[in-house]
Amino acid sequence: MNLPVWVRMVEVGPRDGLQNEPERVPTEAKVAFVEALADAGLQWIEVGSFVRPDRVPQMADTDEVFRRLRPRRGVTYVALVPNVRGLERAAACGVRAVAVFTAATDAFARANLGMSVDDSLRTLRDVVREAQAGGMLVRGYVSVAWWCPYTGPVDPQAVRRVALELLEMGCAELGVADTVGAATPRQVQELLELFLREVCPHRLGVHFHDTRGTGLANVLASLQVGITTVDASAGGLGGCPFAPGALGNVATEDVLYMLHGMGVRTGVDLERVCAASRTLESVLGRKLPSRYLQAGAPRAAAAG
Amino acid sequence: MNLPVWVRMVEVGPRDGLQNEPERVPTEAKVAFVEALADAGLQWIEVGSFVRPDRVPQMADTDEVFRRLRPRRGVTYVALVPNVRGLERAAACGVRAVAVFTAATDAFARANLGMSVDDSLRTLRDVVREAQAGGMLVRGYVSVAWWCPYTGPVDPQAVRRVALELLEMGCAELGVADTVGAATPRQVQELLELFLREVCPHRLGVHFHDTRGTGLANVLASLQVGITTVDASAGGLGGCPFAPGALGNVATEDVLYMLHGMGVRTGVDLERVCAASRTLESVLGRKLPSRYLQAGAPRAAAAG
Repeated sequence: MNLPVWVRMVEVGPRDGLQNEPERVPTEAKVAFVEALADAGLQWIEVGSFVRPDRVPQMADTDEVFRRLRPRRGVTYVALVPNVRGLERAAACGVRAVAVFTAATDAFARANLGMSVDDSLRTLRDVVREAQAGGMLVRGYVSVAWWCPYTGPVDPQAVRRVALELLEMGCAELGVADTVGAATPRQVQELLELFLREVCPHRLGVHFHDTRGTGLANVLASLQVGITTVDASAGGLGGCPFAPGALGNVATEDVLYMLHGMGVRTGVDLERVCAASRTLESVLGRKLPSRYLQAGAPRAAAAG
Repeated sequence: MNLPVWVRMVEVGPRDGLQNEPERVPTEAKVAFVEALADAGLQWIEVGSFVRPDRVPQMADTDEVFRRLRPRRGVTYVALVPNVRGLERAAACGVRAVAVFTAATDAFARANLGMSVDDSLRTLRDVVREAQAGGMLVRGYVSVAWWCPYTGPVDPQAVRRVALELLEMGCAELGVADTVGAATPRQVQELLELFLREVCPHRLGVHFHDTRGTGLANVLASLQVGITTVDASAGGLGGCPFAPGALGNVATEDVLYMLHGMGVRTGVDLERVCAASRTLESVLGRKLPSRYLQAGAPRAAAAG
């Protein structure tokens, strides 16, 4: 099996996960969670987003979380910013890397950003320019890259157009996102192979949700075409615990178990990620969906 | 992506799933479940096992379940039999296909069969001979093919030896089982490729448990080396709902969603499998773990 020897994990739990929790997590617990993930060896962590606190109250304390985080050599704490106002809030608390996002379809962009894809790209052009001027690294997300909850299957050429425009305007890398967890491995490879004709694999990351069980198979399919950046969330955070059709990210623990079991290195200590997730479970008062987190390492007890 | 165009699904939920349920499922509900799975297009269904009722009370009514099932053209109802006594019970109620099982390690065989691997192979030799004499088809399982809960990683050559002996004694095909759900895709391919040097792919099936999230990725890896027979259980039955480290089989629904999404045909109607699982959920009084079953098909509602 032809796989990369090293994969860079992008931890999105504190942002993509906690913003979907029904209750606000205390600032103190968020900081401890991010610090524990960094202790585990995760070097790229999405900490929070600078969005309107009246719209996303779970992220209202992102400024404070960033201020309390201890800077560490080799660790990048990322903030999601929707616009220049968000970018300015990020800059004010010393953020050095931001993520911006748009969608592959107008229907999804209108529902989530209140504007068309082209209008959102115009907005992001300003954000990326200002971020670069401030010395920041920028990651660009393309949402609904395979399936749009409003219009169904997404034309790969539409995704390609948005992706290339994000790269051209200055995004260092992309997060190609299966936002509703609908993609299957062959579709994943087809889209990525289209990108890889024009884009270096190190500028492409994959962001899967495990809504229908295909998350890890999609990660595997991505690695097989040369992708080396994988988004995941500790514990599989990101689903809504009270709704069927939960939209959890692939779990960092499960991805790590699979990668390490195949000899792919990540620099991340799986058991320390589990410890971070368990502490968060006690804060949230519920089990998180990561299967590895619940099952633990395979045991080998002497036969009785 | 190089995949087979057709995959044969082996449904193990009524046997591997229900035998692990804490409560006995009424005979009537079992029959209805199996019939509903056959209605969905599943053509190879493990209905139950002829084991000692005092040891596995969940399977005490297997005779009665087989007697009530309506024969259908193209559908094979399989019984698991541990020995000649079990085989005779199976024959008495008209069973035409049986599964036998041994393990790749002595430690697991001793703990689960009360004898060494070699002794169990001797026992099975009699079972297979009598089954063949009675016109039955025989499938042979090799348990703990990748990881043994007593001795850890399993030597592929040990698995190969047991597998070849099962084939040689007359098993038409094998189920190569990751009993505790520990394997990762590269290990899966390595073992299967070892087998495929000597065995036709149509004599090899894979049987994964999704204990640590790698189940569907392991299925994908198997298809990529040419495997066309995949075991799964409706709803992801087979885990113990009250214990962490649940050992659920990969869910039929999730496997079908992935296969159909990649254009791989199975002849099985995914939504009818979901309907069968939902009826069983109401009998069991709990949700089953299949992600697709909980999430449903990706939707595409017009943007509001």
